[in-house]
Amino acid sequence: MNPTLDLMHRHRSVRSYLDQPIAPALLDAILDAAWKGPTSINGQQVSLVVVEDAERRQKIAQIAGGQPWIAEAPVFVTVVADFHKTRLGVEKAGHQQVIHDSVEGFAVAAVDAGIALGNLMTAARSAGLGVVPIGGIRRDPQAMIELLGLPELTFPLVGVAMGYIRDDGAIKPRLPRASFVHRERYDAAALPEHIADYDRALAEHWRRIGRPDGLDWSANTAQYYQRVYFPDTAPTARRQGFGFDK
Amino acid sequence: MNPTLDLMHRHRSVRSYLDQPIAPALLDAILDAAWKGPTSINGQQVSLVVVEDAERRQKIAQIAGGQPWIAEAPVFVTVVADFHKTRLGVEKAGHQQVIHDSVEGFAVAAVDAGIALGNLMTAARSAGLGVVPIGGIRRDPQAMIELLGLPELTFPLVGVAMGYIRDDGAIKPRLPRASFVHRERYDAAALPEHIADYDRALAEHWRRIGRPDGLDWSANTAQYYQRVYFPDTAPTARRQGFGFDK
Repeated sequence: MNPTLDLMHRHRSVRSYLDQPIAPALLDAILDAAWKGPTSINGQQVSLVVVEDAERRQKIAQIAGGQPWIAEAPVFVTVVADFHKTRLGVEKAGHQQVIHDSVEGFAVAAVDAGIALGNLMTAARSAGLGVVPIGGIRRDPQAMIELLGLPELTFPLVGVAMGYIRDDGAIKPRLPRASFVHRERYDAAALPEHIADYDRALAEHWRRIGRPDGLDWSANTAQYYQRVYFPDTAPTARRQGFGFDK
Repeated sequence: MNPTLDLMHRHRSVRSYLDQPIAPALLDAILDAAWKGPTSINGQQVSLVVVEDAERRQKIAQIAGGQPWIAEAPVFVTVVADFHKTRLGVEKAGHQQVIHDSVEGFAVAAVDAGIALGNLMTAARSAGLGVVPIGGIRRDPQAMIELLGLPELTFPLVGVAMGYIRDDGAIKPRLPRASFVHRERYDAAALPEHIADYDRALAEHWRRIGRPDGLDWSANTAQYYQRVYFPDTAPTARRQGFGFDK
């Protein structure tokens, strides 16, 4: 075991921050961890927009459905799928870009956005900061597009708030390891038992940390996934120029 | 600066591996870095399939279009978008899952897959291993589905080969930082100049490392993005039960 592995094994989200800025040199080093990460075909189809302005963080907290930790933490970074930048390159080379009009293109940009987000979180946590990833910006992606001035062929996929920790979060148990790590072939047969075990373990976790109203995994997942809980993602992405028909 | 930041700032892909296995305890610690990572709504809509069998790695090398480093490296991990697992939970809670039939759901799973992939790469590299992420499995996603026995509502998004380094890769320069990190609002005006600078820098990089046939960024990106270069992604995902109409 080394400190980097240990850090990743103890991941948790932090939702309570001190009123203390992140020094510019440290913030730059954290952002560089995402900048220097790999991207598919070296396309670099991801961009970050860093918001430090307090009023604008307050606005993002509202867009995300009322998440006060976004206003509290000194830095909010939006990870943007960016085929605007690549189109400039493709056209400079004398061609027309097609990739943004496909599920393949969206998959590439979203996976690369996830790598960037993961690097931002690991980088910030390695320096003693807390982080919380925020998918809630997709509750109203058009408002994010306007706030950040995002051009055609870009989409604000996910964000992360970061800052110095006031109250640390608890490490949540995960689904049993054997339901996540499969060897050679996917083992579907054992999943129902793993899920039943985890529902019990998560309910026990909520009791232990004093949140007896916490839902088990199945009930929590059902609450979100019985509908498309952020229904503006697809129409807004289409208005930005993304396509999903091929 | 700390060792974790330093590691991420020096990311590069490795395409030449020693014939040396990864010890089971170390491989477990690397996989745990992905297992313990965060997921949207704690849905855990990602699974890994770890392939160590040499013949099966050879097969994946072929599926990916002939990438010998996949056969050479002792471990290949496929990162799978997994709404099969969540559907079991949603149905256990007495509801019907809808999320897999949306761009929103695909975005969530792909971003979470990217976080898992990023954690795997950082974890492996922290232990002195080399890695190379492989999007080429989407060249023939149906073959991967059959090889890994993936059930309905799962999709093999991306993979990573890892092992002990024979020949290290070179660190590739990135697009100028100001085209990746935007402050408060996206700055589109400066992009053409950044791209022109980078095209020159990347051409110089290829010359320096003895690959004078290397394309600049615009030409390389155009080569891929003037078409949907893995056209089977969308139809295969649809056959697996994913939808993109809403």
